[in-house]
Amino acid sequence: MRVVVVGGVAAGLSAASSARRADRSLDILVLEKGSAISYSACGLPYYVEGRVPDWRRLQVYSPEFFRRERNIEVRTAAEVVAISHARRRLQLASGESVAYDKLILATGASPRHTIEGADRPNVFSLNTPDQAQRLREHLDRHPRGKGLIVGAGYIGLEAAEALRAHGWRVTVADSNTDVLGREDAELTRRVREHLSRFHVDLVLGERVESVASAHGCDLVVLAAGLRPNVTLAAESGVAIGPTGAIQTSDRMETSLHGVYAAGDCVETLHLVSGRPAWIPLGTTANKMGRVAGAVAAGRRERFPGIIGTSIVRVGGLGIAFTGLSERQARRDGFDPVSARIDGRDRAGYFGGRTTIVELIADRRTGRLLGASVLGEDGVAGRINVAATALTARLDVEQFAMLDLAYAPPFAPVWDPLLVAARRLRALL
Amino acid sequence: MRVVVVGGVAAGLSAASSARRADRSLDILVLEKGSAISYSACGLPYYVEGRVPDWRRLQVYSPEFFRRERNIEVRTAAEVVAISHARRRLQLASGESVAYDKLILATGASPRHTIEGADRPNVFSLNTPDQAQRLREHLDRHPRGKGLIVGAGYIGLEAAEALRAHGWRVTVADSNTDVLGREDAELTRRVREHLSRFHVDLVLGERVESVASAHGCDLVVLAAGLRPNVTLAAESGVAIGPTGAIQTSDRMETSLHGVYAAGDCVETLHLVSGRPAWIPLGTTANKMGRVAGAVAAGRRERFPGIIGTSIVRVGGLGIAFTGLSERQARRDGFDPVSARIDGRDRAGYFGGRTTIVELIADRRTGRLLGASVLGEDGVAGRINVAATALTARLDVEQFAMLDLAYAPPFAPVWDPLLVAARRLRALL
Repeated sequence: MRVVVVGGVAAGLSAASSARRADRSLDILVLEKGSAISYSACGLPYYVEGRVPDWRRLQVYSPEFFRRERNIEVRTAAEVVAISHARRRLQLASGESVAYDKLILATGASPRHTIEGADRPNVFSLNTPDQAQRLREHLDRHPRGKGLIVGAGYIGLEAAEALRAHGWRVTVADSNTDVLGREDAELTRRVREHLSRFHVDLVLGERVESVASAHGCDLVVLAAGLRPNVTLAAESGVAIGPTGAIQTSDRMETSLHGVYAAGDCVETLHLVSGRPAWIPLGTTANKMGRVAGAVAAGRRERFPGIIGTSIVRVGGLGIAFTGLSERQARRDGFDPVSARIDGRDRAGYFGGRTTIVELIADRRTGRLLGASVLGEDGVAGRINVAATALTARLDVEQFAMLDLAYAPPFAPVWDPLLVAARRLRALL
Repeated sequence: MRVVVVGGVAAGLSAASSARRADRSLDILVLEKGSAISYSACGLPYYVEGRVPDWRRLQVYSPEFFRRERNIEVRTAAEVVAISHARRRLQLASGESVAYDKLILATGASPRHTIEGADRPNVFSLNTPDQAQRLREHLDRHPRGKGLIVGAGYIGLEAAEALRAHGWRVTVADSNTDVLGREDAELTRRVREHLSRFHVDLVLGERVESVASAHGCDLVVLAAGLRPNVTLAAESGVAIGPTGAIQTSDRMETSLHGVYAAGDCVETLHLVSGRPAWIPLGTTANKMGRVAGAVAAGRRERFPGIIGTSIVRVGGLGIAFTGLSERQARRDGFDPVSARIDGRDRAGYFGGRTTIVELIADRRTGRLLGASVLGEDGVAGRINVAATALTARLDVEQFAMLDLAYAPPFAPVWDPLLVAARRLRALL
């Protein structure tokens, strides 16, 4: 029995490894159209920044590792151009045909749109190691300058930090009116203030149509969001969902029996809204890949969905959120109430700093719907507590009584999460 | 209507403040037998260490503040010696009699036992500001020496850190065979190793009977656990529970109608074991106090219980746990399985360090029962995720799929919590 995986980054290799763990006898082949596999795409901004000296340090495993240690065949520069599921065969760009019994699609995502002049030498992106390397080399050769980053998502903000580290002045532009796709004007306001102190200007609600309109910048980094790579799947008869990404069951099976999909090309269930959502992220890709691989190998596993947890650090500030913002919750049919507090992340004599916590709940049921945390420390931990509470569908009352860890080096007696919960409870 | 609160530290003042918020017309009186009120007892070791220059900085509010800002009368040096609930009157040590309509007992806890020679000038404790001040002054006058700390609970370990900061060599002794009352031999082993690198010796399973047997030390700090102060309550007919602390309903009402209790003198429900537990902690005291005060003032609130979350930092290592250890779980009738992993707290290029995560689950149901985390960073956040999952009764399957925040400055792609959950799931 042969499992073929299309795509050799996060989801694809998780799927292949998981299939191998489930069944030692499988024949497993991974086809990657690019030249690099198994790299941490999330680390590319830090390679550009210089914190990671060589992008190869972001490569977790080589094709040789997979062959030798996991008995998984990985081929690079192997682009699949067509699937004939009736015959269980793939067609490669080279003309070669490859047979499969089970197929896993992990074709990822690509930049959503480009701008006029994107092929100029001073226009960059950060989606692959090659692209990151080109930007890094440019910055190494040109200390200081003025850069425009198109896209205020987490890659855009991380790119801003990378350019700042090279001494560049930075403007980040986005056609949306909020940062990070969160639809939270107050969060955007706080991030803007912080970025401004960090010498990064934010221009929102304005689409950059061409490099010519690039605010007189010396270079442009395109980081304006992604779209799922679904052409191959759609042309093969795989159902595409309302978000434009591949639809799967919670076992990661597509509409074609024996064809699975995982990672940035797949939509999934948002556990708060109860609707399909497409939020491409490395962690989600890895989890989906594991499930897809195990199920393709005959195990019973399921991927329950996501709740939209996201975190980014820029200029020392951690920005994190989970679930729905108040605006998103209202659009999804809830009656949201929100409380936002300025708290302390720990005791003052342990250098406690301001941390801002927002909690959103449904007025009718008291159920928590979302949270955001901004601060210098403890941000990941606090957003993860909220993420866990959302997954478990806790209400504000239960959340306000959580038995959270307290000692002066770590938190104040009333953790800011609990302070926000009490404030919110009083509004219900 | 008059509410009288016996005890003016965490639970007592939370109760008084909460009663005031609930009802502006109440007559509220707090009686504190000591001279200081409203201080952070958890901060006293850091005052001894020198990080907090003056213990008064640990005092959150003064009696004048309560009078002026909250219309709450606070009397210090006011010891209650008897309660006549039939007549709704308290008797003070001064002979004075005080009437009440509702009574809230927040009498706290005291050192569990003492040792022979405890009255010698080189024997100290850390339960009150006075005691902490005496130790701090001694350490300021005697740079370097050899100290024995009796008790390997969190106060004992924090005291060890304080003595190390003054250049002292330290031995910590405890009659238990495990540190921090956790009944976890592996956790104890790891803490012992860490303390040893920090020049702190750990002597376990050996009771220090007298100062004479103090391992030739120059000073002794008594930090050997607490017992609830229940004499006043018991003599007044308030029911005492199986743990030896005051029994209350989830509304914090004792067996006497109109008499409430909160804080270190009260036992509560352990939400994992389902049994009464007595785990005195500042956070719990504050939460209980809020509920007791609100209920005494006529509001409907409840305190659901605890899950035993605890954290301490010593020598840069954070040590945290929640729920039950494997041994505790077995004794409480579960069939526990445990997985312990050495993970990384974030990406290597962000200075990621080892963090050790243990998860314990019930073999029959998969339900999570407990967790421990050791590490230099991210410890509070990770134990709080586990604490939230325990409160929500998540099983290992659900936990392993939590949508936790990921970005290289904060966590690896597979958070150590999720790695531990996957390992544990494979054992079920």
